[in-house]
Amino acid sequence: MNKATNITLEQAAELIRQNDDFLILSHANPDGDTFGCSYSLCGALQSIGKRARIACADPLSQRFSYMKKAVIPQEFEEKTIISVDVADKALLGKLEEVYGDKVDLAIDHHLSHVPFAKHVYVDDTAAAASEIIYDLIQLLGADLNENIAVCLYTGIATDTGCFKYGSTTRLTHEKAGKLIDCGFDMGALNYVLFDMKSKARILLEQKVLQDMEFFADDKGAIVVLTEELMNSVDSEDINGISSLPREIEGVEVGVVLKQREDGWKASMRSNNVNVQEVCGLFGGGGHIRAAGCSFKNMTAEEAKAQIIKAVTDAINNLK
Amino acid sequence: MNKATNITLEQAAELIRQNDDFLILSHANPDGDTFGCSYSLCGALQSIGKRARIACADPLSQRFSYMKKAVIPQEFEEKTIISVDVADKALLGKLEEVYGDKVDLAIDHHLSHVPFAKHVYVDDTAAAASEIIYDLIQLLGADLNENIAVCLYTGIATDTGCFKYGSTTRLTHEKAGKLIDCGFDMGALNYVLFDMKSKARILLEQKVLQDMEFFADDKGAIVVLTEELMNSVDSEDINGISSLPREIEGVEVGVVLKQREDGWKASMRSNNVNVQEVCGLFGGGGHIRAAGCSFKNMTAEEAKAQIIKAVTDAINNLK
Repeated sequence: MNKATNITLEQAAELIRQNDDFLILSHANPDGDTFGCSYSLCGALQSIGKRARIACADPLSQRFSYMKKAVIPQEFEEKTIISVDVADKALLGKLEEVYGDKVDLAIDHHLSHVPFAKHVYVDDTAAAASEIIYDLIQLLGADLNENIAVCLYTGIATDTGCFKYGSTTRLTHEKAGKLIDCGFDMGALNYVLFDMKSKARILLEQKVLQDMEFFADDKGAIVVLTEELMNSVDSEDINGISSLPREIEGVEVGVVLKQREDGWKASMRSNNVNVQEVCGLFGGGGHIRAAGCSFKNMTAEEAKAQIIKAVTDAINNLK
Repeated sequence: MNKATNITLEQAAELIRQNDDFLILSHANPDGDTFGCSYSLCGALQSIGKRARIACADPLSQRFSYMKKAVIPQEFEEKTIISVDVADKALLGKLEEVYGDKVDLAIDHHLSHVPFAKHVYVDDTAAAASEIIYDLIQLLGADLNENIAVCLYTGIATDTGCFKYGSTTRLTHEKAGKLIDCGFDMGALNYVLFDMKSKARILLEQKVLQDMEFFADDKGAIVVLTEELMNSVDSEDINGISSLPREIEGVEVGVVLKQREDGWKASMRSNNVNVQEVCGLFGGGGHIRAAGCSFKNMTAEEAKAQIIKAVTDAINNLK
């Protein structure tokens, strides 16, 4: 593979200006930020006369279906490949095999970014990758219409817990402020993104709270979501469950262990502990206060024992 | 009482410059916005050499105790009285009798403001009264130190559901962005304000969700909180329960009916229905999508019957 070259955002814009026929890749298990990036950038590229389309290992979920309005479906042979919010080529999921070594430009905000593209722009001070795409769209002189703005806003709002997290900066707020002036119904959008819960979700939350196990003097909490439990609700209803354990007063690190075909995937959320480091012990990564890792070919009890030990150590090392 | 005179915010600043010995009044059953206003304004007035203190019918709750750092306790005979975020003198609670007709300047953001002060500044486009105090502090040339900034941020964040609600504007975001640059730990603050839940709160939520009654084709939901239930948890744990019914998918108007000494207090939250109008039918008021009213000398069943009828009518009138 080619050696990765770090470039500036202005150079990224220039690379885009000088090329065409863009394929924009989002990460697998997609969230609001990676789709916010891909749909807004695709729409912006089309608006300045480029051909562009989007690919992702997983489909756009119903809850983000409004993003489709930002782009016009186009068919063409891709010549330039851009990944957005993809911290590692393995996170392309089933698209890794085809595109993993062919990405021309990776735009990301993960401190843990493992370079895989020819050109890389990573800004880990951005609370969301959509913040970077916001700036890129400005540099390209593309129009911030309502349909593009709602994608960028979604990316920024979902990655910051609607501006709650410490990652939020003055610039995050300034961009959000300008975006909500573009005409979409922000109140109704946020209701759907953050407040609305189906009755199935409410039952799931009750089950999760009942089954939660505490450790490290109640500073750690862990919950296991079996396939059976997850299959009992829509995948939409699983979103955000990872934050639940950490929301309990006194809990410093919350872990949700979800069953996968070949084992278990842990999502960790913390207040002060560096869970990126903890997940790194198991080959995972992410952000300092929100990270994940996988445990293959073992039972939930085995994975839990390893997690509880590592998290307890990290909590004890805090002070 | 004196006739109320509407003034500009610059005139309000001038009134402050030309007077001294300020008593700043917050509304009873205080929230983050009314205390965010009073503590930040008090601290700002002190910083420009004025004497100022705060009064409220109810104490500052533990969760907002950090606001105390914004002000220096001072004893003096008040000469100028300012109310902040007080929509009606009745909302001064037990302070109404003493101060209700003596307020020199009322600063508020409620559309439903009923004038009671000599001078009135109401801006109902402000998502929080703290947004207005932010501007006023700028006009006064007072310093936005960390302790004052955290009060203003608290007011803005709590009144907008952390920037989720449709009342949030570009200016709201711009002010929040400048405030978080003043040095307080915004991520830790928001965790406490919005995410952290005690175990008692979690049990209360489970009980509320179990007991919820639906009406108007499941577009209305109502919950009754008896004194017994509320006494089983800290008052802190009651905060935000009013939003719960509305968060269920399909629910257009959510009502929480809380027992009071002399009857019941209803809090209504809606997506589209004007609940200010609905509450107005019972002598209450508030905002279009968040309002309240009281039912005295009747049973919960009697109050519920009246509410269900009025809310059902309002939902049916939507379309």
